[in-house]
Amino acid sequence: MRIGIYGYGNLGRGVELAILQNPDMELVGVFTRRAPDSVKTYGAPVFSADDVLKMTDKIDVMILCGGSSTDLPKQTPALAKYFNVVDSFDTHAKIPEHFKAVNEVALSAGKTAMISVGWDPGLFSLARLYSGSVLVDGQDYTFWGKGVSQGHSDAIRRIDGVKDAKQYTVPIESALNAVRNGENPILSTREKHVRECYVVAEEGADKARIEQEIKTMPNYFADYDTTVHFITQEEMREKHAELPHGGVVLRSGVTGLNKEHKHVIEYALKLDSNPEFTASALVAYARACYRMSQEGLYGCKTVFDVPPIYLSARSRDEILGKLL
Amino acid sequence: MRIGIYGYGNLGRGVELAILQNPDMELVGVFTRRAPDSVKTYGAPVFSADDVLKMTDKIDVMILCGGSSTDLPKQTPALAKYFNVVDSFDTHAKIPEHFKAVNEVALSAGKTAMISVGWDPGLFSLARLYSGSVLVDGQDYTFWGKGVSQGHSDAIRRIDGVKDAKQYTVPIESALNAVRNGENPILSTREKHVRECYVVAEEGADKARIEQEIKTMPNYFADYDTTVHFITQEEMREKHAELPHGGVVLRSGVTGLNKEHKHVIEYALKLDSNPEFTASALVAYARACYRMSQEGLYGCKTVFDVPPIYLSARSRDEILGKLL
Repeated sequence: MRIGIYGYGNLGRGVELAILQNPDMELVGVFTRRAPDSVKTYGAPVFSADDVLKMTDKIDVMILCGGSSTDLPKQTPALAKYFNVVDSFDTHAKIPEHFKAVNEVALSAGKTAMISVGWDPGLFSLARLYSGSVLVDGQDYTFWGKGVSQGHSDAIRRIDGVKDAKQYTVPIESALNAVRNGENPILSTREKHVRECYVVAEEGADKARIEQEIKTMPNYFADYDTTVHFITQEEMREKHAELPHGGVVLRSGVTGLNKEHKHVIEYALKLDSNPEFTASALVAYARACYRMSQEGLYGCKTVFDVPPIYLSARSRDEILGKLL
Repeated sequence: MRIGIYGYGNLGRGVELAILQNPDMELVGVFTRRAPDSVKTYGAPVFSADDVLKMTDKIDVMILCGGSSTDLPKQTPALAKYFNVVDSFDTHAKIPEHFKAVNEVALSAGKTAMISVGWDPGLFSLARLYSGSVLVDGQDYTFWGKGVSQGHSDAIRRIDGVKDAKQYTVPIESALNAVRNGENPILSTREKHVRECYVVAEEGADKARIEQEIKTMPNYFADYDTTVHFITQEEMREKHAELPHGGVVLRSGVTGLNKEHKHVIEYALKLDSNPEFTASALVAYARACYRMSQEGLYGCKTVFDVPPIYLSARSRDEILGKLL
């Protein structure tokens, strides 16, 4: 199947690499709003985003790699008019609205549009749905990290006197273990995660003031125990260049006449590269998107709508024989 | 939806309890090959298995709770002619054959037949399929336990001089951790699990001979490090009455131009009651089975064919808003 990539940042680069691992896919090209000459890929041709509508008959699925705040709310409905699309829209609160906008366009255009693919939303959402459907009397928990939060890193970088910053979200092990032991703890925000910040300050900047501004920042840090480490730009480059992430979804539930049997389901990810892993999920769902479009299953779809077998490049016989 | 239970052992009892947790379901009754009067349920009416065909218009999905060795290979195709059915057929090597037999009947009868539902096969199979579809360059690992293996317990009970026995399969923590760390170890059977046996010997029996017979039993124990503890019937009753189980499915894979980024996906279950948890999965898939039959999706299906959203009793809006 013939794939296009729309938007070429960390995620787009990850998709290009993931396609190289999937021999049933061919990457037609990357579409960018920057000058195509200025974009260096791992080998894929680069086109201007302005020319995307000239390629409608050359691409089976377009994978959208823009951001959720401003890009995808516009791009996904706009492109679902002409292409089968997959996106990683991850603003949880706005998913119903995004779904509706994309669904209308895709249905009337006869396209399949898969939204909110990745790991959260995505694989973590699946873990929540499967676990909750089996253990109906129970409690859900999601922990994130240890990993880099781009949003929190950006928030620190906007503080006056900050040259560079990286923020790690770290789950609190004792809280995690209480959940694993089926204790069903009630956990406040502060009791689930801590936030570790690595900051390069500009020369002469007031570090005490920067630290104070970080720790008291509403929504981002005020509700957490936050530690701030000032480091050199060199240390930042050497030790904090990667984008690891991960997390755990747990459901703790009970069965039995007197609820006497406890069960814990745990789904955990430990990722060296958040964008490359997310990209790998997007590519698997692009395969499903193509197959569903071939069967006339149009409109907006989520991971909840996709029969798992559509994700795999392996044959049905092999899957039944080896994986079931 | 109206559910029937065919076969009433540990699993059938678990299904009856699980239906009590799912208010969108009604249990019509239990079908047994024993004398109906002799079967005590938690409240469900009991019918003779001989009368099952009189109830074809009263049951939307029949959940089959017989064993995989002799019951299900006959019962699932036989009943799929008249009912939508769900079974937990778990003889991995014979699944393709079972699928074929059930598929033929269900297709020609216009019924939906879901086979091999539970946790392995079942939720573990899903973990393998999802993980392998996302991390295409990687390695699968499945560990079982700590938990009671019925098959191994039965095998010990057949030894001369054994009154009662319970066998626990225990994963070897150091092997598990090597996989979690992305070391991709090559593990022999002996390096993955140990087997712990608790045995009540008949009075005057030769314990040394029993222990030797267990440890050298081909297929069951010879390839494992096995420990044998002789205990009293009283201790058996007090400490080993339950049927806990669980396990872990892991996939360790790589992405990146030079495969430089490692990722580990882990799916783990810790279950106080194997039959009650398996039953809870059967009930969720009975819901999906009913919905798929309503849509005319007939034939034999597996967990790989079911869009996850069909499993949940919650509304689509609630699922998109709260779980995605």
